[in-house]
Amino acid sequence: MPFIDFRSDTVTKPTPEMRRAMSEAEVGDDVYGEDPTVNRLEALAAKMLGKEDALFVTSGTQGNQVAILTHCRPGDEVILEAESHIFLYEAGAAAALAGVQTRPIRGTNGAMDPDDIKKAIRSDDIHHPWSGLVCLENTHNKAGGKVISVETMKAIYHVANERSVPVHLDGARLFNAAVAAGVPVTDFTQYADTVQICLSKGLSAPVGSVLAGSRAFIKEARKWRKRLGGGLRQAGVLAAPGIIALETMVDRLAEDHANARLLANGLAAIPGLSVDVDGVETNIGLCHIHDTGLSNEAFIALLKAAGILASPFDDGVIRFVTHREITTDLVQTALERIKQQLS
Amino acid sequence: MPFIDFRSDTVTKPTPEMRRAMSEAEVGDDVYGEDPTVNRLEALAAKMLGKEDALFVTSGTQGNQVAILTHCRPGDEVILEAESHIFLYEAGAAAALAGVQTRPIRGTNGAMDPDDIKKAIRSDDIHHPWSGLVCLENTHNKAGGKVISVETMKAIYHVANERSVPVHLDGARLFNAAVAAGVPVTDFTQYADTVQICLSKGLSAPVGSVLAGSRAFIKEARKWRKRLGGGLRQAGVLAAPGIIALETMVDRLAEDHANARLLANGLAAIPGLSVDVDGVETNIGLCHIHDTGLSNEAFIALLKAAGILASPFDDGVIRFVTHREITTDLVQTALERIKQQLS
Amino acid sequence: MPFIDFRSDTVTKPTPEMRRAMSEAEVGDDVYGEDPTVNRLEALAAKMLGKEDALFVTSGTQGNQVAILTHCRPGDEVILEAESHIFLYEAGAAAALAGVQTRPIRGTNGAMDPDDIKKAIRSDDIHHPWSGLVCLENTHNKAGGKVISVETMKAIYHVANERSVPVHLDGARLFNAAVAAGVPVTDFTQYADTVQICLSKGLSAPVGSVLAGSRAFIKEARKWRKRLGGGLRQAGVLAAPGIIALETMVDRLAEDHANARLLANGLAAIPGLSVDVDGVETNIGLCHIHDTGLSNEAFIALLKAAGILASPFDDGVIRFVTHREITTDLVQTALERIKQQLS
Amino acid sequence: MPFIDFRSDTVTKPTPEMRRAMSEAEVGDDVYGEDPTVNRLEALAAKMLGKEDALFVTSGTQGNQVAILTHCRPGDEVILEAESHIFLYEAGAAAALAGVQTRPIRGTNGAMDPDDIKKAIRSDDIHHPWSGLVCLENTHNKAGGKVISVETMKAIYHVANERSVPVHLDGARLFNAAVAAGVPVTDFTQYADTVQICLSKGLSAPVGSVLAGSRAFIKEARKWRKRLGGGLRQAGVLAAPGIIALETMVDRLAEDHANARLLANGLAAIPGLSVDVDGVETNIGLCHIHDTGLSNEAFIALLKAAGILASPFDDGVIRFVTHREITTDLVQTALERIKQQLS
Repeated sequence: MPFIDFRSDTVTKPTPEMRRAMSEAEVGDDVYGEDPTVNRLEALAAKMLGKEDALFVTSGTQGNQVAILTHCRPGDEVILEAESHIFLYEAGAAAALAGVQTRPIRGTNGAMDPDDIKKAIRSDDIHHPWSGLVCLENTHNKAGGKVISVETMKAIYHVANERSVPVHLDGARLFNAAVAAGVPVTDFTQYADTVQICLSKGLSAPVGSVLAGSRAFIKEARKWRKRLGGGLRQAGVLAAPGIIALETMVDRLAEDHANARLLANGLAAIPGLSVDVDGVETNIGLCHIHDTGLSNEAFIALLKAAGILASPFDDGVIRFVTHREITTDLVQTALERIKQQLS
Repeated sequence: MPFIDFRSDTVTKPTPEMRRAMSEAEVGDDVYGEDPTVNRLEALAAKMLGKEDALFVTSGTQGNQVAILTHCRPGDEVILEAESHIFLYEAGAAAALAGVQTRPIRGTNGAMDPDDIKKAIRSDDIHHPWSGLVCLENTHNKAGGKVISVETMKAIYHVANERSVPVHLDGARLFNAAVAAGVPVTDFTQYADTVQICLSKGLSAPVGSVLAGSRAFIKEARKWRKRLGGGLRQAGVLAAPGIIALETMVDRLAEDHANARLLANGLAAIPGLSVDVDGVETNIGLCHIHDTGLSNEAFIALLKAAGILASPFDDGVIRFVTHREITTDLVQTALERIKQQLS
Repeated sequence: MPFIDFRSDTVTKPTPEMRRAMSEAEVGDDVYGEDPTVNRLEALAAKMLGKEDALFVTSGTQGNQVAILTHCRPGDEVILEAESHIFLYEAGAAAALAGVQTRPIRGTNGAMDPDDIKKAIRSDDIHHPWSGLVCLENTHNKAGGKVISVETMKAIYHVANERSVPVHLDGARLFNAAVAAGVPVTDFTQYADTVQICLSKGLSAPVGSVLAGSRAFIKEARKWRKRLGGGLRQAGVLAAPGIIALETMVDRLAEDHANARLLANGLAAIPGLSVDVDGVETNIGLCHIHDTGLSNEAFIALLKAAGILASPFDDGVIRFVTHREITTDLVQTALERIKQQLS
Repeated sequence: MPFIDFRSDTVTKPTPEMRRAMSEAEVGDDVYGEDPTVNRLEALAAKMLGKEDALFVTSGTQGNQVAILTHCRPGDEVILEAESHIFLYEAGAAAALAGVQTRPIRGTNGAMDPDDIKKAIRSDDIHHPWSGLVCLENTHNKAGGKVISVETMKAIYHVANERSVPVHLDGARLFNAAVAAGVPVTDFTQYADTVQICLSKGLSAPVGSVLAGSRAFIKEARKWRKRLGGGLRQAGVLAAPGIIALETMVDRLAEDHANARLLANGLAAIPGLSVDVDGVETNIGLCHIHDTGLSNEAFIALLKAAGILASPFDDGVIRFVTHREITTDLVQTALERIKQQLS
């Protein structure tokens, strides 16, 4: 019996259609710009995201890092949320590769206050780094898949623009935000100079992300991707399922959101567990386990014994992520098993 | 009439004795290790700081950066206080030069909570940087010259040691801490693997700092200093006043502390100004001006009109620093003038 | 009619068997180490290369850069051949990412003289970088696919070892070297601490390379790969054709070598062209066109008009690369067309 | 009896006038731009070098590194001579700090061929770094103090300009070049965008160099100097002797050149030694010792026993540098002693 795997939407395997597309993809050498499937994916992504051009990259981390390397010079400061993926989970790459100083701002539900950003932008003083970039993350993973509202993004973009600081959007789960907000994804991307979206999370492609921006930006980004070793050859085999992901997998994210709320309600009803049910805006639920008296490790072990996987987050907090392979039935099954384990 | 200059203790000019020492210094080529005066300064500083070896550097920033470059590898994370000098005022150098990610922890009176450091040290996970260094600052400038107690340093050193993370002490004003606490400076330095102290702040030397640590560490630091262009030739001309600074200027810091308290009490008595008088532990006073209705710029201009210089800090906060050239009389004069300006 | 494409063996498209393997690959989330196909590829590659462990990377550039980042510290010097891929064709990544200084040594037929390496290794002097790595390239692309002999590699390894400098082998086309020399690939890899081999050149896989070395090295390399954005999710879709490449595509490289010699002989017989036929050791031929009076651009255009693609190299030199999609018949066709064009 | 020290002109000690100037220097806090003596030095140097602005730095290495950091972005390629100081003797700093790839070109007598530079400038190709800077060194130390002619500099500047690549001049000993060529120093500096000159070599100041360029360049350079820890406080104590160096020490370099030729002739006349006497253009002589049968170490030891210091250079080559402390009499004494030792 396979595990019911709530660890992440990254675990989603390619669909049969994606597998077929891979095996039939028309390919060429993408380093020479000759892979027609990659070119098609990049054009499609640029259009969907409302940008001039786009670049296929092998991961969200690569998309974010290439963006930072292209926007900034060493010694610049990058303003980002204190629990953002770039700050917490990219192994210090922004400093290691781009030589930029990350300046974390504590947000509310993942959203930084535009005023805090305004204060954080540095004045011209010999002791100060230049403020080189503001990075947003939408949805915000560590905050539990929260949507940063279009209004907040607009206000932040305005503050940054006033000081000529560009804005990059880590939109690994941006389509979840758009589906949850019921607006086109371009409502968000209009307030960012560049955006990175993942094909391999909820959208279920096996590998890859896309970085979008202006034509000049993407030309320079392409060289940085090459330096990082992200210049592939017959990359069409990855682009083909990516196209299917963008074309057919966005709308169904609503199901994942419904399942996440279902799961949250169910968990909240189990003695010892608590979930901010109203806070489950997309496909992520954070479950507080303090009242069970169990450590994260013990709770994860108990889940595992019941055939369930989830991720330890902060102390006393377990993250559950829904995705294409988590059906409503599996949510019900999981809830029953957890109830049983804790009773 | 010269300004009464409270901007910083860095403005102190060399004493006549220092000037004489400079002009009479026995010198050699320090890149070849042949400047006897530099060698004497380094030996003296190592001994005073309780370390095996020491290295003359041209500034506190250079001492801190050489320490980080020597302790860390790119992609490491450096834990430091959110308003520390390294994070705020070294122009992003730690990221630009050493490629390390700075991880700011908000402290109380400049002192990070050892538990927060414990939590901030990263576990072994592919997404995480390695925690490569903890940096302390004592006294803590932005907190108003506060002393980080020996007990706190001990607790932090213990937490870091348990996880094999080294500790660097930015002791630009460490002698102020020792004088204020009434303990030998080695009471502090025993809880740091490396320490940087400034000769050119309260100690009044014209130029320079010293970085101290183990013999192996200093050997490697020497190459990093060379890369930064800090390998000088007849550096004895700077080391000579540095020796005088260490030998004769430490004890007199008590006068600066007394003057800072005198000033703080005086300012606190002026309507519209408020100072946490008990919080003035060393030679720095932070004066809150909100109730005057004046902006920082306006207040600084008003001081200047009265022949007084001080530094704008945070919004509504002005920093006053006492030092060798600020006598008790000058404090009184300054207070009278400020009172007059504000009445 | 498709072009006869001699530009590079990177243009080879996946075989039907590879496409099937992709579509049927058993996959998992490789960032969690759970992709069974990736694990199988890495184990297979490690065994074939005689190393403890191996890591799938997305390109040869990524394999080389991860190796340099793992072996070196910023400021180290990397000794390599003056026309090596790392020096000429990785967009300055070694300096940009790892902060190392490349020290080019002019070789003969791509092989550096061990004595030159001996002289280039730096002594312990404050002005010198540390010599951190020697990089070899075998076969050597710019030298025309020349094999660096096992004896030369042994001598270089000995020289480097004596001074505790590790050796990395850029073996993008190492299997060509082994097939040409008629020895097991481990005869070469025994004289390198780490080795990178490409799956996507002559071996015909669509995407990817493998970096092999000690277990400790690969653990650290894994974090650098993550920082570069090379940590993929369901990477098994790329690993599956990679396994086929390693298992079935090595021996057939002999055909490419035979075809390259056939092509070289044919080109050499065409008036105006000259080729060092004996120097064609593997699948690369360098054709000198000076006597045609044509520029590189004009010659490439003339080829194109005849339905043939090749790469301009140095001034007056055109590179032809044979590979799985270039049959003996296509070589003959190409020769006839070129003869016609030039007559 | 002190050694007759031919190791370098860096060993020159400050003159009594310089020592007096140090002790009487009017100083201020240079980080605030308030040190009048530093400001005076920078204005003087800018004027002498024909540039808009200038910046005091603590060493030639710092001047060169700040220039590279300001001109380039990581991943750029810097074209320089294969035996230049930046490539050989700055401990890999250009790669470590600025992340640039150094591209060494073998010159003749220290002068690169403009055609070689033309070829080395990279085309726009995804595999290539951008060519970000050309660095010249004049006089060229490793070539034996050779002067790069104004004509050569002009031709190189033209080649670089055509491709929009800036030129930096490492002019640590540029005044020696100007004195030897009998032309104003601006004849050389007109063909470089930025120039670094040393105050502490033949010009005898104890510490420091100056970097000159456009106003915008120097503003940005100032922040990089701060990051490297080269922002000093009462730097006027170093600037004061620097002014004397520039104002009074340039013309007397002719004496050093005459003494170097005297020494070269004398050495050439000693059996076993050979010197390219005509090649001694400035204050450096390279003495070939192969015919003595002695190793560099043995020869240096033999000199030392005779009270003479010099520097081992390449295998079988010993460098002698003349400077203010080497009088004609001392040259004669040294020659007699060497003759005696070798007879």
